[in-house]
Amino acid sequence: MEGLKMKKILTIAALCALLLSCSSKQVVYDITGNKIAPVTESRPATTNLVNGQSQMINPDLSVTFTVRAPEAEKVQFDLGKVYDMAKGENGVWTVTTDPQVVGFHYYFLIIDGIRVADPSSKLFYGCSMMSSGVEIPEAGESYYLPQEVPHGEVRMQRYWSELTQAWRICYVYVPAGYDDNLKQSYPVLYLFHGGGEDETGWPNQGMMNNIMDNMIAAGQAEEMIVVMDRGYAKLANVTESGPRNMFNFDGVSKVIMEETVPMIDANYRTIPDRKHRAITGLSMGGFISWNIGLTNPDAFAYVGGFSGSGQVRSDDQFPTAYNGIWADVEAFNNSDTFLYVSTGTEEPGQMYTGVNAFHKLLEQKGVNHVYFESQGTAHEWLTWRRALKDFSTYLFK
Amino acid sequence: MEGLKMKKILTIAALCALLLSCSSKQVVYDITGNKIAPVTESRPATTNLVNGQSQMINPDLSVTFTVRAPEAEKVQFDLGKVYDMAKGENGVWTVTTDPQVVGFHYYFLIIDGIRVADPSSKLFYGCSMMSSGVEIPEAGESYYLPQEVPHGEVRMQRYWSELTQAWRICYVYVPAGYDDNLKQSYPVLYLFHGGGEDETGWPNQGMMNNIMDNMIAAGQAEEMIVVMDRGYAKLANVTESGPRNMFNFDGVSKVIMEETVPMIDANYRTIPDRKHRAITGLSMGGFISWNIGLTNPDAFAYVGGFSGSGQVRSDDQFPTAYNGIWADVEAFNNSDTFLYVSTGTEEPGQMYTGVNAFHKLLEQKGVNHVYFESQGTAHEWLTWRRALKDFSTYLFK
Repeated sequence: MEGLKMKKILTIAALCALLLSCSSKQVVYDITGNKIAPVTESRPATTNLVNGQSQMINPDLSVTFTVRAPEAEKVQFDLGKVYDMAKGENGVWTVTTDPQVVGFHYYFLIIDGIRVADPSSKLFYGCSMMSSGVEIPEAGESYYLPQEVPHGEVRMQRYWSELTQAWRICYVYVPAGYDDNLKQSYPVLYLFHGGGEDETGWPNQGMMNNIMDNMIAAGQAEEMIVVMDRGYAKLANVTESGPRNMFNFDGVSKVIMEETVPMIDANYRTIPDRKHRAITGLSMGGFISWNIGLTNPDAFAYVGGFSGSGQVRSDDQFPTAYNGIWADVEAFNNSDTFLYVSTGTEEPGQMYTGVNAFHKLLEQKGVNHVYFESQGTAHEWLTWRRALKDFSTYLFK
Repeated sequence: MEGLKMKKILTIAALCALLLSCSSKQVVYDITGNKIAPVTESRPATTNLVNGQSQMINPDLSVTFTVRAPEAEKVQFDLGKVYDMAKGENGVWTVTTDPQVVGFHYYFLIIDGIRVADPSSKLFYGCSMMSSGVEIPEAGESYYLPQEVPHGEVRMQRYWSELTQAWRICYVYVPAGYDDNLKQSYPVLYLFHGGGEDETGWPNQGMMNNIMDNMIAAGQAEEMIVVMDRGYAKLANVTESGPRNMFNFDGVSKVIMEETVPMIDANYRTIPDRKHRAITGLSMGGFISWNIGLTNPDAFAYVGGFSGSGQVRSDDQFPTAYNGIWADVEAFNNSDTFLYVSTGTEEPGQMYTGVNAFHKLLEQKGVNHVYFESQGTAHEWLTWRRALKDFSTYLFK
């Protein structure tokens, strides 16, 4: 993704449209191994409200959605592609979508032209609002399901931000045993959501606590604390000039470095040095992570971006990007900084090509890094669950 | 509230209708004392999405709601009372409500007859779905606002329930200093939501973490852990006969006593005895608390119900109610069990009279208890915030 071009093209709304144009995964809690069962006959999605059957997953991974609305004149269904729903004699509107790719998809109803969340769906903060979501099951998977392993906790940590003159809440995952092993200190991963989402994204849509529990229990990831803060911060006493720009990360970078990291180090048993600090995020959160991680090399030894590239678009920019961190590639490679770039193979247009081009630029310049592609998934949460699973295996070793 | 009568009359839907027919409070984070400012000119409610102005509170505490929907034919606004919204030339629909009582109110939009959450509102789990909410400010208040005091944390604790064969999540508030004062053990309050709500109700709508932080910091409440579990549990291998009955608490009582309490005592530094355990809840959660607390007198020394009475409707039932706990009133009073009954003075019909009658029955029988009325508030969250604040002052002293 090329920085300046991206600035012009992408807005939060556009990002949401892209998210919607993508893909879905159903969780079946099969305690005997926790694998997701194949869809052999239509079954309710796990993203229905409790006991609901408004989202039915069919064996071809199409989804049949129903809405009861006897008085309505026109109801549409927006899953990126907009479908007209058909009204039955009983006042129930129905649509069966095309077969969907596995994973989690945001969607909306459009009633009389008003785009609203489906009242029968669990809702998730995305697209700058509470959004409906449907999980299309990926048969045989289990790494993001709750399993019979020790469970960490997600904690809501409130703190006052002088810089923004506001209370912030960050979500903090602590691994199983944190409250028992009181002499143990832990490395920390800072993990960001995408544009239009917030700090609830990773625990809810991302199921990050299950992923970390399972990876740690399997010995594939080290025990670590994971900090999920909000990827927005409007500094007090700073007048923004011009329209809001979601690709200006000065505010959030300042808050994270000057307030969040010290708060976490003061309140949790961390190992407060660069070798034990990582930062990554998805989409917009990837941009944030490159920005913070690469301009604070003394603070982070592990820097990644899931479907969000560094803001470097050309050879010319390369030597001076991020305060010139790559001006001397050999010195950088000897600095033991781990870089991680990932994307989904089905991400549309620039989403894929931008990240892939960033990877190729790093490769061409000889900058050590790991590149990961999630096969068959788009610019959405299944890509990022897979990326977190993979990224976690490299950290703090 | 009279048990059997209530069974027939109240369903979750009816409860929600009642909730909707009630009242609203805006939070202004005034760090210099944290008092809510009076509404001297129209201002956005704190329940708007970030930077939103779709909910404007007027000085008379009426609310002006706006929805952009150029194509819509009919849009209504449901705050208990249903208002027709008026369409402006710009395609923006508007309504100004009657003046509202202070506090938090659920509401919905009705578009073409479909009842949906307002896409411009923060959403809250209530009425068995994500619901829009508006907070009407109560000038001069501060006890449920974040203040410059030490803050506890709310933790999401996952655990496997054998009885229901499902993963449960309970929210656990630990007071400030919990992770520092490692030799300290704490009493525990079990705190339940109402019908159609879930374990997110108290932290979100109820702002319980602010209330507890502030009350503890002021020395008015003891340091305690607060456990918020889900007030529903469908036991595995138990076939329900007849329609679902929200006033059958056998399942949830069994899970709380046999699984939740032991899990909490195993995972947190609790003082695991009756003198250091309390239980209360709102509305349906009050019924649950009386049921669990009074049938497990060895486990709880403090039992309360906020706007939810004991299921005792007559003199006849009194001696045998709750396994005959009041068969010998003098013995009960000597058992040092603290009982707490509360309601809001504006709760409609049986909501008020039922709880008040329960209080009077206890009084008539000579059962020691505290009775609290929240002045001018209805069957909704401001009543319950006030009740929690008051109840907390009696605990563990």
